[in-house]
Amino acid sequence: MDPQQRIDLNADVGEAFGNFSTGWDEALLPLVSSVNIACGFHAGDPRVMQQTVAQAAELNLAIGAHPSYPDLVGFGRRFIDATPDEITCDVLYQIGALAAFCRATGVPLCHVKAHGALYNRAAVDEATAQAIIDAVCLYDRELAVLAPPGSSLLRLAREAGLPALAEVFADRAINPDGTLVSRRLPDAMIENPDLVAERVVRMVLHHSVTAIDGTEVEIRGDTICLHGDAHGAVARARAIREALAAAGIVVAAPHARRNA
Amino acid sequence: MDPQQRIDLNADVGEAFGNFSTGWDEALLPLVSSVNIACGFHAGDPRVMQQTVAQAAELNLAIGAHPSYPDLVGFGRRFIDATPDEITCDVLYQIGALAAFCRATGVPLCHVKAHGALYNRAAVDEATAQAIIDAVCLYDRELAVLAPPGSSLLRLAREAGLPALAEVFADRAINPDGTLVSRRLPDAMIENPDLVAERVVRMVLHHSVTAIDGTEVEIRGDTICLHGDAHGAVARARAIREALAAAGIVVAAPHARRNA
Amino acid sequence: MDPQQRIDLNADVGEAFGNFSTGWDEALLPLVSSVNIACGFHAGDPRVMQQTVAQAAELNLAIGAHPSYPDLVGFGRRFIDATPDEITCDVLYQIGALAAFCRATGVPLCHVKAHGALYNRAAVDEATAQAIIDAVCLYDRELAVLAPPGSSLLRLAREAGLPALAEVFADRAINPDGTLVSRRLPDAMIENPDLVAERVVRMVLHHSVTAIDGTEVEIRGDTICLHGDAHGAVARARAIREALAAAGIVVAAPHARRNA
Amino acid sequence: MDPQQRIDLNADVGEAFGNFSTGWDEALLPLVSSVNIACGFHAGDPRVMQQTVAQAAELNLAIGAHPSYPDLVGFGRRFIDATPDEITCDVLYQIGALAAFCRATGVPLCHVKAHGALYNRAAVDEATAQAIIDAVCLYDRELAVLAPPGSSLLRLAREAGLPALAEVFADRAINPDGTLVSRRLPDAMIENPDLVAERVVRMVLHHSVTAIDGTEVEIRGDTICLHGDAHGAVARARAIREALAAAGIVVAAPHARRNA
Repeated sequence: MDPQQRIDLNADVGEAFGNFSTGWDEALLPLVSSVNIACGFHAGDPRVMQQTVAQAAELNLAIGAHPSYPDLVGFGRRFIDATPDEITCDVLYQIGALAAFCRATGVPLCHVKAHGALYNRAAVDEATAQAIIDAVCLYDRELAVLAPPGSSLLRLAREAGLPALAEVFADRAINPDGTLVSRRLPDAMIENPDLVAERVVRMVLHHSVTAIDGTEVEIRGDTICLHGDAHGAVARARAIREALAAAGIVVAAPHARRNA
Repeated sequence: MDPQQRIDLNADVGEAFGNFSTGWDEALLPLVSSVNIACGFHAGDPRVMQQTVAQAAELNLAIGAHPSYPDLVGFGRRFIDATPDEITCDVLYQIGALAAFCRATGVPLCHVKAHGALYNRAAVDEATAQAIIDAVCLYDRELAVLAPPGSSLLRLAREAGLPALAEVFADRAINPDGTLVSRRLPDAMIENPDLVAERVVRMVLHHSVTAIDGTEVEIRGDTICLHGDAHGAVARARAIREALAAAGIVVAAPHARRNA
Repeated sequence: MDPQQRIDLNADVGEAFGNFSTGWDEALLPLVSSVNIACGFHAGDPRVMQQTVAQAAELNLAIGAHPSYPDLVGFGRRFIDATPDEITCDVLYQIGALAAFCRATGVPLCHVKAHGALYNRAAVDEATAQAIIDAVCLYDRELAVLAPPGSSLLRLAREAGLPALAEVFADRAINPDGTLVSRRLPDAMIENPDLVAERVVRMVLHHSVTAIDGTEVEIRGDTICLHGDAHGAVARARAIREALAAAGIVVAAPHARRNA
Repeated sequence: MDPQQRIDLNADVGEAFGNFSTGWDEALLPLVSSVNIACGFHAGDPRVMQQTVAQAAELNLAIGAHPSYPDLVGFGRRFIDATPDEITCDVLYQIGALAAFCRATGVPLCHVKAHGALYNRAAVDEATAQAIIDAVCLYDRELAVLAPPGSSLLRLAREAGLPALAEVFADRAINPDGTLVSRRLPDAMIENPDLVAERVVRMVLHHSVTAIDGTEVEIRGDTICLHGDAHGAVARARAIREALAAAGIVVAAPHARRNA
């Protein structure tokens, strides 16, 4: 048995573009152990990528690529009916582009987490999931893949022999079947920092979370995503860190990598 | 003395984009020893890059990245007043993106040749040249850099300790001082295939070329660029290959690389 | 009764982009009475738009906007899950941009035909169809809308009081229910110029076409689309023009407009 | 003599893009009489344009197009060596796109102000200035053109018979020759709200401003630009409005237009 509980906290960062900034990276970066860095298709121009990799390296964070459908104006949040071949090539391109900044900075690329609509599609569509996994396998079979528990993406990543990390969300309400409550419903987001923090601690220690109907649901995550773009997100992230520390849980990336 | 004369022939390829094709790759690829593959900023989407790397790998060609200013509509032919930092990041991004397809295909990335206006600017502007060289050094100090003879780019690449290859042009008229005749002048391009082929052979064997005023000019190139986008380019490329073979000159890339 | 049969022939043109040309406009423009000009979202940069409007004006063609999802790399052929509001704004933007070149050239903008995946989606999805119609109504209620017979788009355009033109295809096989045979099936395209020409004449004179199972299907089109991007398209277009002339059918745009 | 002094205050707005917001429009819009709305080339996607036109219409502001070089990642702040023909077509495209939203909203398009590097280039380069003016003349000879006092752009606009408005800046230090102090120098920006407000009042009433060396310089502006993107900009804008009101100066757009 593990003498000390550990959990990975991740955040989507580097989502500025040119003159457009998002503003939350500075506050979030010191609170997480892993980051998913935008690669230019939904956000993140080359200079933003270089700077974000440098900041993450400074803080010793595990760095991952955050590839998207090519949709800057839609921030990668819209499904695009791309072919599996297009998806594989788009993901390879973005992984390589981010890996160049990791290499230039002397830090390893550790994982890949699809962004937005591509992530959501890969959770339920096998062809999309396999297209992403093909790209990862072609690039580097030691890259971890982040995916929702129970998703096509998680299952196919494991079948391909890739390190696969189940990702859960700190601030999202859960249905009795373990899926996320749709963001279109009013109670999809949990805003209270103390409540969010308490749920996270229970997820880590007891693999359990209270669903929206009050029942207890089993949940097993290898990494917990902290959203940066929601109001109050930084306050919630701080509350989570404090609660984890108070519970003696170490925040650390699970997938240490040698340098590229 | 070298028992056998050798020369590298290179071409800019992979310059299709989405539904838009250029059409000359198929004819040019079998005639060259090195290719410079567009990386998405002036041409070349991820799928085109993947396919072009695969074709070049099949023919055992030395593969290079062909980074550009971000200007798809201008095909990278317009100067953009980018900062050195922007240029370094843009070039790193494009090298990494192409390297991902090389890695997926199991072939090495061998060199970098800036495209269009970026190449022309780097020939004469030290800050631009250094920005490109910084990107190459940060990525891989074994990557060769292609640059015009006598240019800032060539000199700074050598000073940085990078393998540097002087690039000359098969079909361009030359001024008495060794520079290229401006494309805005009527006689800038030499169209006759036999004349072009004869000039190339003389460049390789005697390091000499007849300038536009009839004088002989010394010229030393490590690689000769064959244009693909001009009328009659493929006929000229074939004439060059035949003339080189007749003269006993081997066409081969100078910079063999182990796999990435 | 009309003493003389008339039909409109339309083609999608101006689908070059920057250095990338398509090559078929020159041959197709003299063969049609209406053109749908790309507006920059799937093809057609501002200079291409200006030149294409000038060419169409020279030939006295009816000019229409050909708006698309924003997807240059996918040539507008991929469904994007855009909201109706996004679609309305994207279409308005593109109509306005093309109208500027019409205005600069002194010719009217006559119609709007959605491109590719947007057209296909609007044929079957009411929200998409209404979003396009909203854009047209907001811009100019005298603009005609091209749409497939029996589509949501055609019906909603008529309900909105817009001039609506049913568009049929010269070179596509037809199912017994009047819909197009999917391009994924082997016999979707009819390649023989004489056969295509004969079908077009029968569509115009007898509102009838032979379906893929040999049955006769009623078909009523106000305009017939000639594809430019298929092999042999120009030969088919010429055969159609000759057959129409031989049958005494006038080729003319139905929607004469005063200048903008 | 005019019984009542008037001045136009303008601001660059609508410079959000997709998920990226700028944040200052809400505060600035009620403080100005004219707005220059981004048209998609440096900022401003179709939805942002639609919303910004609606907000400006609500406040009865004079609406202008704010066209740029095509450079989203560089926010239009980098010179691009575009040909005059490319500039004319790019500007026409952007004017038309914005005009569509004006037309849809039922308000007139009143003026054109080039953005960033295009504005700066047009101030000193006649070919660029003429290319912009050609676009405006082709579109609508009643559109006003904003340009710096003494610039090529202002002179050529007047020679073309266009309504031309000399634009001065509220918060920029002035050289003894009337030009702006370069932003690369430390004292280029005047930050103190009261000082800025006092300078503006003196510009309007006495056509005079204190240059950086303490001398008085004559300055005649038809419109004063309030920057939105600088720290403290909104506070300065409010101070200017109060000082103008206290001095009995009316803030109003000079170029009332009938509807398009």
